[in-house]
Amino acid sequence: MERMPESDSVLHRHLRVLDAFDVRHPFLTLSEIASASGLPVSTTHRLVGELEREGLLERLPDRSYRLGVRLWEFASRAPRALGLREVARPWLDAVHDRVKQHTQLGVRSGRSVLFIERMSTRESVINATLIGGRTPLHASSSGLVLLAHADDDTIADVLAHVPHDFPDSRMRTGTGLRERLRQVREDGYAVANGYIHPESRGIAVPVRDADGIYAAIGVVVANDESSPNPHIAVLHRAAAGIARDLAQAYRPDMEHRIHGLRPHVGRSLRSLEYLEGLSSS
Amino acid sequence: MERMPESDSVLHRHLRVLDAFDVRHPFLTLSEIASASGLPVSTTHRLVGELEREGLLERLPDRSYRLGVRLWEFASRAPRALGLREVARPWLDAVHDRVKQHTQLGVRSGRSVLFIERMSTRESVINATLIGGRTPLHASSSGLVLLAHADDDTIADVLAHVPHDFPDSRMRTGTGLRERLRQVREDGYAVANGYIHPESRGIAVPVRDADGIYAAIGVVVANDESSPNPHIAVLHRAAAGIARDLAQAYRPDMEHRIHGLRPHVGRSLRSLEYLEGLSSS
Repeated sequence: MERMPESDSVLHRHLRVLDAFDVRHPFLTLSEIASASGLPVSTTHRLVGELEREGLLERLPDRSYRLGVRLWEFASRAPRALGLREVARPWLDAVHDRVKQHTQLGVRSGRSVLFIERMSTRESVINATLIGGRTPLHASSSGLVLLAHADDDTIADVLAHVPHDFPDSRMRTGTGLRERLRQVREDGYAVANGYIHPESRGIAVPVRDADGIYAAIGVVVANDESSPNPHIAVLHRAAAGIARDLAQAYRPDMEHRIHGLRPHVGRSLRSLEYLEGLSSS
Repeated sequence: MERMPESDSVLHRHLRVLDAFDVRHPFLTLSEIASASGLPVSTTHRLVGELEREGLLERLPDRSYRLGVRLWEFASRAPRALGLREVARPWLDAVHDRVKQHTQLGVRSGRSVLFIERMSTRESVINATLIGGRTPLHASSSGLVLLAHADDDTIADVLAHVPHDFPDSRMRTGTGLRERLRQVREDGYAVANGYIHPESRGIAVPVRDADGIYAAIGVVVANDESSPNPHIAVLHRAAAGIARDLAQAYRPDMEHRIHGLRPHVGRSLRSLEYLEGLSSS
């Protein structure tokens, strides 16, 4: 989702207030919110009050604000966010145990890849991915996998934003970029050497569902001369597992019993049986 | 956050639409949304359009809707939700590795405990906790820990909702409940035998911050005659670790460099240094 510059609906203004908070500014005063959102203080005061009453903002004893846990409740029911994360977690764990480097899960959001999970160790290589952070689609292996299956408008839009000195010279022209994406589709994976940092290499594969590409999973490893093939094989196995478990988790059931419940339960079979029993009784 | 029945602000109506989606109903058509939210179809149509334009709802090829990943982006910046989860995860992993039963993390939201993380194995005992789900404060060990430090109004409000046949007879009267909470405060933990299911026992301890009780962490184990003390000791060590790491993660830095960044990076030291360098340059 890119911002709609002209829209100034009431909802849009509420979201401008929420957007004032970012990774580096998790606590803001009223005047900082007004300044970051570009809204008058009096308007900000009213909007903040409404958001606080609904639990979307929380006021602290020092009168600063933070984003509220009710946002988490909504996010926890978003299939492409927490639902996907919960379903994918055992598979990402398996990749991480094997590759022992950054392992991450992203979905497309407008011209960006939004990372919803990342696993790292203290010794992992340099990686700019933040959980909840965005990277332009062209600038990472996960983004290339998602872009390779995007519509033409998105591809054209992304191309217009590739910097002229982008590290991968193949992607500095429209023809080059389209050829690169064709190759990613054909190969079923993307390797990005030094896109984010010269020392690091991203490798990503798509997670498919019935409608197309649902997400990308990838690793960030040292940018050396070694073959990426062993990592690609590990990622493909995990992607197939996630795709299968996703189909199962959100499978519409005749009795609407387990539909959507599984990602919230974790792996405990007895708990799932118990909750299904409650739900059907 | 309990709902405000009288409020019908524009924001409130947008949230009624989002609230139509729950764990068991992650995909809804327009008419299902209208029905679940109690809004006229024409109003629902307009609100859904606005929410979709902002990325809070996503429309699927079959014209049903799901909650959108933009909600996840906001949630990822909420210190008491994803920030806490990321900081707590290594400690919860350690508890789970040791206890080998459900391990969970909850925060207070109105009269409920909202669970933001849960780890389970296939063999774990019965546990009704859902990630993103709520349990009344009186009905679980995590809830009791949070309730023990709540204000008087919340305690009175919870008491009015304890069922007359609640499994723990100590909690069926105001005096009994208050005595129970005093004991939880004094002990620094809560044990709940068979509150959710006769076969299961919850054990929880508080996670403190400078302002009081920030969260509760707990395990759900078999409800047998064994002493809970070893589990309590493991939980206390983890709670102290989480408290320390939280203070570090959200420590306001003189140069505003790492404030709030750490929970989004994971454990990679080189990535943190790299991102701090970007941020200060």
